[in-house]
Amino acid sequence: MLTEDIIKSITVKNENKIILIIMDGVGGLPVKDGKTELELANTPNLDELASESALGLTYPIAIGITPGSGPAHLSIFGYDPIKYNIGRGVLEALGIGLELTQHDLPARANFATKDKNNIITDRRAGRIPTEKNKELCKKLSENIKQIEDIEVIIRPGKEHRFVVVFRGEGLEGPLTDADPQKEGLKIKYAESVSPSGEKSARIVNKFIDKVNEVLKDEHPANTCLLRGIDKVPPVPPMSEIFKLTPAAIATYPMYKGLSRLVGMEILQSGESLKDEINTLKENYEKYDFFYFHIKKTDSYGEDGNFEEKIKIIEETDKILPEILSLNPDVLVITGDHSTPAVLSSHSWHPNPFLLKSKYIRPDEGKRFTENECLKGSLGHFYSINAMSLMLAHSLKLKKFGA
Amino acid sequence: MLTEDIIKSITVKNENKIILIIMDGVGGLPVKDGKTELELANTPNLDELASESALGLTYPIAIGITPGSGPAHLSIFGYDPIKYNIGRGVLEALGIGLELTQHDLPARANFATKDKNNIITDRRAGRIPTEKNKELCKKLSENIKQIEDIEVIIRPGKEHRFVVVFRGEGLEGPLTDADPQKEGLKIKYAESVSPSGEKSARIVNKFIDKVNEVLKDEHPANTCLLRGIDKVPPVPPMSEIFKLTPAAIATYPMYKGLSRLVGMEILQSGESLKDEINTLKENYEKYDFFYFHIKKTDSYGEDGNFEEKIKIIEETDKILPEILSLNPDVLVITGDHSTPAVLSSHSWHPNPFLLKSKYIRPDEGKRFTENECLKGSLGHFYSINAMSLMLAHSLKLKKFGA
Repeated sequence: MLTEDIIKSITVKNENKIILIIMDGVGGLPVKDGKTELELANTPNLDELASESALGLTYPIAIGITPGSGPAHLSIFGYDPIKYNIGRGVLEALGIGLELTQHDLPARANFATKDKNNIITDRRAGRIPTEKNKELCKKLSENIKQIEDIEVIIRPGKEHRFVVVFRGEGLEGPLTDADPQKEGLKIKYAESVSPSGEKSARIVNKFIDKVNEVLKDEHPANTCLLRGIDKVPPVPPMSEIFKLTPAAIATYPMYKGLSRLVGMEILQSGESLKDEINTLKENYEKYDFFYFHIKKTDSYGEDGNFEEKIKIIEETDKILPEILSLNPDVLVITGDHSTPAVLSSHSWHPNPFLLKSKYIRPDEGKRFTENECLKGSLGHFYSINAMSLMLAHSLKLKKFGA
Repeated sequence: MLTEDIIKSITVKNENKIILIIMDGVGGLPVKDGKTELELANTPNLDELASESALGLTYPIAIGITPGSGPAHLSIFGYDPIKYNIGRGVLEALGIGLELTQHDLPARANFATKDKNNIITDRRAGRIPTEKNKELCKKLSENIKQIEDIEVIIRPGKEHRFVVVFRGEGLEGPLTDADPQKEGLKIKYAESVSPSGEKSARIVNKFIDKVNEVLKDEHPANTCLLRGIDKVPPVPPMSEIFKLTPAAIATYPMYKGLSRLVGMEILQSGESLKDEINTLKENYEKYDFFYFHIKKTDSYGEDGNFEEKIKIIEETDKILPEILSLNPDVLVITGDHSTPAVLSSHSWHPNPFLLKSKYIRPDEGKRFTENECLKGSLGHFYSINAMSLMLAHSLKLKKFGA
């Protein structure tokens, strides 16, 4: 297998520009008349582009595996999603917009209910309202600012969910979950899996004790559970491995966070597709790689709302001419994973993949749909190879060997 | 992944014969009317064969990766091209027809120009004529026959290029390049990357000092740069892993050298396609595996000369009946890598692959072209799997497991 070191040794910097459009969760399954969301959408611009592009289908991680957004995105950015296993705590922290450093140990937390004997009776504290969550996080923040020499940062999420970040020297992960996983069991402390995590375990468990003390008169949220307690893995930046100057255009915090993890510049991208296009145009001269994220295809897929998912696909089709007018050397349109509306969740089905450049082998695929991509000259491949393809087509890869 | 040990444990010797025709760099991109070199060529024999064969497309190394001829060939011979990483020095030595042993440390060399302060002012010594190169190599050979107990072999290449082979006991590679890589920098000595390479570094650097002394009154070629200094990796022969009795029919030195590396017998093959066919016929009874190399498809691709590349494809088509008349049990026709005339270089695009045997699943591909191979029953696969396919179709592989 090609290692990162080999890839790094053959990448070269040049002026050619790559635009990678990720339509989150765009791939689907038949929803009506045997047709998928992409097949039902009216997409004249995408159709024309597809007929001039090389098409294919990608597996985000492995055949049959449904990925989360973290590994699915890392893969398409050219990083081995199994090697760079991003903890849930890191993703939740990124998801609420926290910037993480190498000194941070984030954890994903739930407010929960325990009884007098420290038995967990409700792992979600009756799904308390978000407003109550905010109030409790404020109270915790005021009472727990520091443990030993470690700063404690607490941020509310939705309902019973919140995030804690432990910041300071000498923290190592991962720790085991401070969560009995089942109701009716005793509260559980975190444990380090190696000696270097002992300080982390001590700090985290002192935090749990303090939470129990601060919340002792609250009900139902009188304790917390902590999961996915791990640091940000040291990810070599895209500038180093791929010699790119990359920028991210995304509206949701988690995707910005993931982009920052791999060393992209995060551009102020507003809220709408129109805002994102304007950001792309304004910054086009400054970077040679643009990650352009469209979130709502996934959101509507998750809601099982295929009509709205189709509308987002059609909206994307309408803005396509503006992107094409920039005339990028390489344009890729794909999904990170599929989110079929009939499943209302991420799925394991491969992603439609479209690549336009001067050096493609044309194929018989005529639309950007699951079945037309099956006719494509790129065949089935793994998302992690998408980066090599984008670099090759922009002439940013030297020969391997002589 | 299947290791060499597993493959070796299931290979069996039998009488069935395999012919592997490598049309170097045969795959292309559209050059005229949206058609590739293979699509434009008039190839009635290949067409007929393709319609009775299993077709597919192969990646030499990995998706998006453009290989050199060394790794591309090793892969199709069934050797992991990343594990058996052949240094530039080895390939250059093979390329000028030098036979290498396990006691040899070859280096690729340039004549260069330095000033009085040992600053490299021209890394190619003004691209001196080949005649001058020969004269200088003769002078060096006469003056530098041995360093310590190590024999020194010097052979001219073209223009400013030559090859040095250090031969003797106790040499280990790789060394760092004795080349500042840029003009305006001081001459650089080679360094060993591990303690076992210390003797090699000492010998190589003494050689550089001697060259500087012998050439001190020459201009512009008054010094040399050495690169790719490494030994031949110990490659287990094809007879051992695949239980084949293999022969190579190739006209260019480098391909003969690569074949010798994997333990093929090198047959005297003359210069022309006709000579190669005669060699094949004369030796057909003596071997069970024939590597038949056609170089010029690549040469004309590198020149950007699609008309001549098409002609070579058509010439190959004309000799095909003679090969078919031998009635091999397995016939494969493919490229090692693509060399599209529009790129005038090797490329990352997958290779058309054709396999004829009694045991194929017929498919809808009707021609030996990039797009017809896309319809093939073999799909996309890696070149390294071609050997297992050839062995399987010649019934030279036992069952794996019970």
